[in-house]
Amino acid sequence: MIIDCHGHYTTAPKALQSYRDAQIAELKSPSGLREKGSVRISDDEIKAIEGAQLKFQRERGSDVTIFSPRASAMTHHIGDATTSLHWSQHCNDLVARVCSLYPRNFVGVCQLPQTPSHPIANCTEELERCVNELGFVGCNLNPDPSGGHWTAPPLTDRSWYPLYETMVVLDVPAMVHVSTSCNANFHTTGAHYMNADTTAFMQFLTADLFKDFPTLRFIIPHGGGAVPYHWGRYRGLAQDMKRPPLPDLIRDNIFFDTCVYHLPGIRLLLNVIPADNVLFGSEMVGAVRGVDPETGHYFDDTKRYIDAVPSLSDADRGKIFEANARRVYPRINRLLAD
Amino acid sequence: MIIDCHGHYTTAPKALQSYRDAQIAELKSPSGLREKGSVRISDDEIKAIEGAQLKFQRERGSDVTIFSPRASAMTHHIGDATTSLHWSQHCNDLVARVCSLYPRNFVGVCQLPQTPSHPIANCTEELERCVNELGFVGCNLNPDPSGGHWTAPPLTDRSWYPLYETMVVLDVPAMVHVSTSCNANFHTTGAHYMNADTTAFMQFLTADLFKDFPTLRFIIPHGGGAVPYHWGRYRGLAQDMKRPPLPDLIRDNIFFDTCVYHLPGIRLLLNVIPADNVLFGSEMVGAVRGVDPETGHYFDDTKRYIDAVPSLSDADRGKIFEANARRVYPRINRLLAD
Repeated sequence: MIIDCHGHYTTAPKALQSYRDAQIAELKSPSGLREKGSVRISDDEIKAIEGAQLKFQRERGSDVTIFSPRASAMTHHIGDATTSLHWSQHCNDLVARVCSLYPRNFVGVCQLPQTPSHPIANCTEELERCVNELGFVGCNLNPDPSGGHWTAPPLTDRSWYPLYETMVVLDVPAMVHVSTSCNANFHTTGAHYMNADTTAFMQFLTADLFKDFPTLRFIIPHGGGAVPYHWGRYRGLAQDMKRPPLPDLIRDNIFFDTCVYHLPGIRLLLNVIPADNVLFGSEMVGAVRGVDPETGHYFDDTKRYIDAVPSLSDADRGKIFEANARRVYPRINRLLAD
Repeated sequence: MIIDCHGHYTTAPKALQSYRDAQIAELKSPSGLREKGSVRISDDEIKAIEGAQLKFQRERGSDVTIFSPRASAMTHHIGDATTSLHWSQHCNDLVARVCSLYPRNFVGVCQLPQTPSHPIANCTEELERCVNELGFVGCNLNPDPSGGHWTAPPLTDRSWYPLYETMVVLDVPAMVHVSTSCNANFHTTGAHYMNADTTAFMQFLTADLFKDFPTLRFIIPHGGGAVPYHWGRYRGLAQDMKRPPLPDLIRDNIFFDTCVYHLPGIRLLLNVIPADNVLFGSEMVGAVRGVDPETGHYFDDTKRYIDAVPSLSDADRGKIFEANARRVYPRINRLLAD
């Protein structure tokens, strides 16, 4: 079985965005009622996914996608905790409907209702709802709910601990994933995403978070940002700072996905990061939608690159494609047969 | 000849930092005179470099370092344009003294007196002074003088154009280099530096700066941040956005150094980036000071990694070690014989 740990519902029916537009418009109205409202989408509309993510799954040979709301649309910087709660609940409920329509193909991961003024307001409650009631297996955690202004404390700050306590109790991991940048310096998918990945890794490297939470698990997406490319730099920084060797630091707690859109990058990733800490991911349909003229295949068809690394043993391939996902997101095992 | 394009005066005599400390203390005093003051350092104190950068040059087999003030100490976020001007002038003057004591070993690049409220205040004038009077060959440009809050406009914004006009007239390039982060999210050398490199590349990719300045040249240090590792992603983003193919985008304008501290990273860099756009650099003595237990050599002895890539042709090796630096920093040719 091949599990893709990184997919967002980027092809959701338009009514979802219409809801969000109306919600944002209401924020500007002084008489805004702040009601949760509803999103009307039929099962038939959801089935359009058969021509998108589901079609690509089949064509590219993966079996299951760990599926979450569109990351760039989380936009936690808009409104307040109430805004974010209503929006997150609708997004999560819609993902749950996809998963219940296609239980063999999609497993849910939730968006958290973060907000810049209080990044974990409502988050533990919504995480519990999604895991206990909707059958989700993890969450996406935004280290910068301000959208590119980086006003929240680092992920190792104790203010995040209530969320981590809940994650540990539920035995679910978080993918560290920012949303749209509203800072003109940072292109969302070309800079902000990569920077957040690199930033989070360095936060983990310089603090003792995993002493406090030995079973807490994070997936750093987009192949770990700049980290594997600069693995020597990080090994050297850790050594200079008398921090643990990186294989010890990451062993049970930090994992990288394979959302790296060319063979040389995947080759480097698999070369320097232990196979136990790499999860297959494609972020399909996501940031890059075209076909690579150099290969004739979609840039984000990342399985092809992994298949093209002959030095990868069958055992390691099995870890990356399936076993690690089952270990990092153990609730998957309740949903999917072997 | 082997030219190292990336060295900072990280081993400057203590009197320099004492000056800075006093300058910062004076900022807090309401009666502060804001005088430039002086930095007293003897030639003998400067010669301590013979046991540091100069010793490593000889041991590792490079000939000349393109040398600039310590990047993490630029701290443009402190004080105002006057603070930054006085500090930059002292730092630049000290680098000029190193270069005049060791004209075969060091060539100067200046720190710019940037300040968050007006990032190019004084910059064109100080650049002209350094190039015309001190014989410098380039500058370091900080895309985030706020020190991790990213409040300046992107490097492609017209507000930077007066500096670019001066760079073009003087025929000098800029290395894009941030300074210390005062945002707790970003570790300075492990996150902020990498993020700035990635960010700047994406700014260049999404704008037409080089149509306005066809001869403007930037070096993106630290091996280009996350960019070469994600070269497929950037090729795909450029294609989706109908931007020029990356080799065309970078050809005459964007260059990466080789400050990547392990062989797999250097191999990837040399594999995906055209040899015409790579400049040898080590950032020695810099962010990582230790010896890699896996190799027994200093992490930042980057020449060893390049030497260990057998697929690199002699012609390309010559470009990376010398010819590209002479092309990107053409004023070097007035200072150094062939």
